[in-house]
Amino acid sequence: MKVERSAINPRRGQDYPEWYQQVIRAADLAEISSVRGCMVIKPWGYALWENMQKTLDRMIKKSGHRNAYFPLFIPLRFFEKEAEHVESFAKECAVVTHSRLQADGKGHLIPASPLEEPLIVRPTSETIIGESFANWVKSYRDLPLKINQWANVVRWEMRTRLFLRTSEFLWQEGHTVHSSPEEAIQETLAMLEMYRVFAEDHMAMPVICGKKSDSERFPGAVDTYCIEAMMQDRKALQAGTSHFLGQNFARASHIKFVNGEGVEEYGWTTSWGVSTRLIGGLIMAHSDDDGLVLPPKLAPVHAVILPIFNESNKSTVLEYCGKLKLELEGNIYNFSEVAVEIDDRDLRGGEKFWSYVKKGVPVIVEIGVRDIEANCVCFSRRDGLKDGKQSCSRDTFVATFCSLLDDIQSKLFNRAMKYRDENVVNIDSEPEFFEYFKDSGGFASAHWNGDRAIEERVKKELGVTIRCLPLGGGEGGVCPFSGKESKQRAIWAKSY
Amino acid sequence: MKVERSAINPRRGQDYPEWYQQVIRAADLAEISSVRGCMVIKPWGYALWENMQKTLDRMIKKSGHRNAYFPLFIPLRFFEKEAEHVESFAKECAVVTHSRLQADGKGHLIPASPLEEPLIVRPTSETIIGESFANWVKSYRDLPLKINQWANVVRWEMRTRLFLRTSEFLWQEGHTVHSSPEEAIQETLAMLEMYRVFAEDHMAMPVICGKKSDSERFPGAVDTYCIEAMMQDRKALQAGTSHFLGQNFARASHIKFVNGEGVEEYGWTTSWGVSTRLIGGLIMAHSDDDGLVLPPKLAPVHAVILPIFNESNKSTVLEYCGKLKLELEGNIYNFSEVAVEIDDRDLRGGEKFWSYVKKGVPVIVEIGVRDIEANCVCFSRRDGLKDGKQSCSRDTFVATFCSLLDDIQSKLFNRAMKYRDENVVNIDSEPEFFEYFKDSGGFASAHWNGDRAIEERVKKELGVTIRCLPLGGGEGGVCPFSGKESKQRAIWAKSY
Repeated sequence: MKVERSAINPRRGQDYPEWYQQVIRAADLAEISSVRGCMVIKPWGYALWENMQKTLDRMIKKSGHRNAYFPLFIPLRFFEKEAEHVESFAKECAVVTHSRLQADGKGHLIPASPLEEPLIVRPTSETIIGESFANWVKSYRDLPLKINQWANVVRWEMRTRLFLRTSEFLWQEGHTVHSSPEEAIQETLAMLEMYRVFAEDHMAMPVICGKKSDSERFPGAVDTYCIEAMMQDRKALQAGTSHFLGQNFARASHIKFVNGEGVEEYGWTTSWGVSTRLIGGLIMAHSDDDGLVLPPKLAPVHAVILPIFNESNKSTVLEYCGKLKLELEGNIYNFSEVAVEIDDRDLRGGEKFWSYVKKGVPVIVEIGVRDIEANCVCFSRRDGLKDGKQSCSRDTFVATFCSLLDDIQSKLFNRAMKYRDENVVNIDSEPEFFEYFKDSGGFASAHWNGDRAIEERVKKELGVTIRCLPLGGGEGGVCPFSGKESKQRAIWAKSY
Repeated sequence: MKVERSAINPRRGQDYPEWYQQVIRAADLAEISSVRGCMVIKPWGYALWENMQKTLDRMIKKSGHRNAYFPLFIPLRFFEKEAEHVESFAKECAVVTHSRLQADGKGHLIPASPLEEPLIVRPTSETIIGESFANWVKSYRDLPLKINQWANVVRWEMRTRLFLRTSEFLWQEGHTVHSSPEEAIQETLAMLEMYRVFAEDHMAMPVICGKKSDSERFPGAVDTYCIEAMMQDRKALQAGTSHFLGQNFARASHIKFVNGEGVEEYGWTTSWGVSTRLIGGLIMAHSDDDGLVLPPKLAPVHAVILPIFNESNKSTVLEYCGKLKLELEGNIYNFSEVAVEIDDRDLRGGEKFWSYVKKGVPVIVEIGVRDIEANCVCFSRRDGLKDGKQSCSRDTFVATFCSLLDDIQSKLFNRAMKYRDENVVNIDSEPEFFEYFKDSGGFASAHWNGDRAIEERVKKELGVTIRCLPLGGGEGGVCPFSGKESKQRAIWAKSY
């Protein structure tokens, strides 16, 4: 058997988890730090996050939300207010107990000045934001209150993986208060739809929108909605969640308003968030055996220009490259100038070329004297390395560059969509279901009568969970596990 | 005596610290939270911070720095590495000692699962970033390494004040490594200059650039440079610092590189930062007895349009206002679209008008049917309320709107500069110096022979410190405290 060479070792088919780590390393996205479970997001990874932030922030503001910032620390007594919530997050939180260090007399420092009340480093901010909202909301005229926060949060994870599960991560968390359950549910679903648009149109990552089963609900929520994406190992990644919190947190935090009839009521709240986990999803949705593949709409650099020169023609080549860069940057793509870099470092051409392949830059341009003489541009598409290098006139290249990016963007989406569609299967019998997941499976669309015991058994025996009950529902049928009536199919899968 | 009415009570001249709190409250910028020393930055305050970030981030990137993100927590052993550093920050830090909460059997939760090694919530990130830099830097080819981080930091302050001094604050911290002390010093000064440009050109706040005396150096630095601004109570505000760290932190973190001759050396590092404290400076530099005054370059909203209508002409008025908004937004100001809001809430006109005065919106436009008939715009400048309302043709208003903003921006700067210049005094005798600061004083430019005992005595007796030794130095002279020779004058002041 012919073994194809690839820039990443191992390849996806050989060892998917290790391939994932190696893609991150080769693209220089992030690294593990010496602090248990915390990562360092390196410049290329952070630039990707900044682009995600920029787009999401625009969408969040456009839909009438305003950004604000709340304390990192949550006093223990706030944290205890919502019973389900504290029960879940108390298991994995960073607790601040002292406000000073002092010498222990043996040349080391030990914690000193114990706090009267321990502080929890926020794992999510419902309880601390609730404290403020209770002051801000007095009357129905103050509603809806629609706030978003960009912040770091901490959950003490035992098994961590870069981007996918880390003790500290970066995210946005939206928190809103409404005067009716209908309006709050509408908000919850509108934000889910915003996440779908972001995942599909910007990350080029198709997702299934749905509701979580009760066992997977956010602790304290009435309903949790989510977007679920399929990775290239056919496992599911929960990429974003949006929660209808009913009056649970309003009651815990005393968020009350006087309605139009002069009667005091608790508000109806929502919360919704996406995190640096999306970067993990992006990596796993598109990357290949040669490394990272980035959708142009989020790529920190759209094209890198590699000048090929010797001492005699160096200035000619660099001048041409500089002009080409400026021409390309004159284009506006996805609300910003096209981003172009020139790499004139003294490195071997192949090494340089492959470093950008591994970084996922959508278009790699190589310019030598012959291209200049012909007023041409020679380029490679990251999504189509096997098609080899292409050449076209400089004017055409500049004039059609944004279309080229659009084409790459839609090809990535279509490829991911095709892969997912090939790996979602309707299953109507229990043996077939177990057979499907024995090796690895994909997404099984199977009926379920709502019985939690079934969920638990399947999880225990197969490591498979209900990812969501897709919105729109579909037809009723028979639950293959119980033989009982089922309202709709659920999506079942192994997951991250 | 005639008492002038003002929107803020007390006025600046009556009780400056309380005026400051009331300006913040009236503009709805921030509030104290229930978490000791931590603030909630409300949407209007956060929008201001976002604008500061946007501009600074552009400047930081343009000068060749890349953003990254490092862990929130610093293991105690890293923190201990630089002696001066730990001695200073250990006095006021949040210490994480547990990773879980458990029930105490009496219905409450207590910290559980003690950590093997306590973690410090970063008060600044030299030591944790040093850990990564030690891995990233191998050869002189890896240098300079120029990284910036936007983050929250925590210093356990005993006496806190919104924006000026809080236990948690937001900031950017630049961290760089260089192959020579000359290059590192050049970087330190270039970033100081960047801060000066930001303070003067964007915040409209004149600053004095200088070097700190040894007693005010950043703990662990060789030299600390700063920008110092004068507030309207004539006290100084340190608005930004840039540190030349020599090889101190490189030695502590083992940041080594192989130089061009193949010899291993410690790197030369710098760090520099500005924080949400700048918002406090901005408030105190420009605001007046009617509330916040914002420089247009940082204002979240450049103009608010207040439609004046009754039921019969509502649609005509709102249509005109909507068109005016779109026309104004067609202008680009300071790299972004002009930001315009229409407030058509059902409120009394005066109440609405004054709410925007207190929020510091640079231009307040009022549109009624008579303006529409004359195709005119009636507006007030926030910086010139006493000049009353102005009127001009709609076309002229739209066409010259950016010049109007520029004019406000430069007037604010000139006003602040004039105030500062009037309050910087050359002083050459000790009695005169003590007399000057007996009431409140301003900035005293006085010689100093470098003796730390003098600094300490002046601080103890007058609460006055050396703010900086201005760059450029000036002429030598005689120290009025010791009668000894002095190389240059220092700026002395009371400070925040």
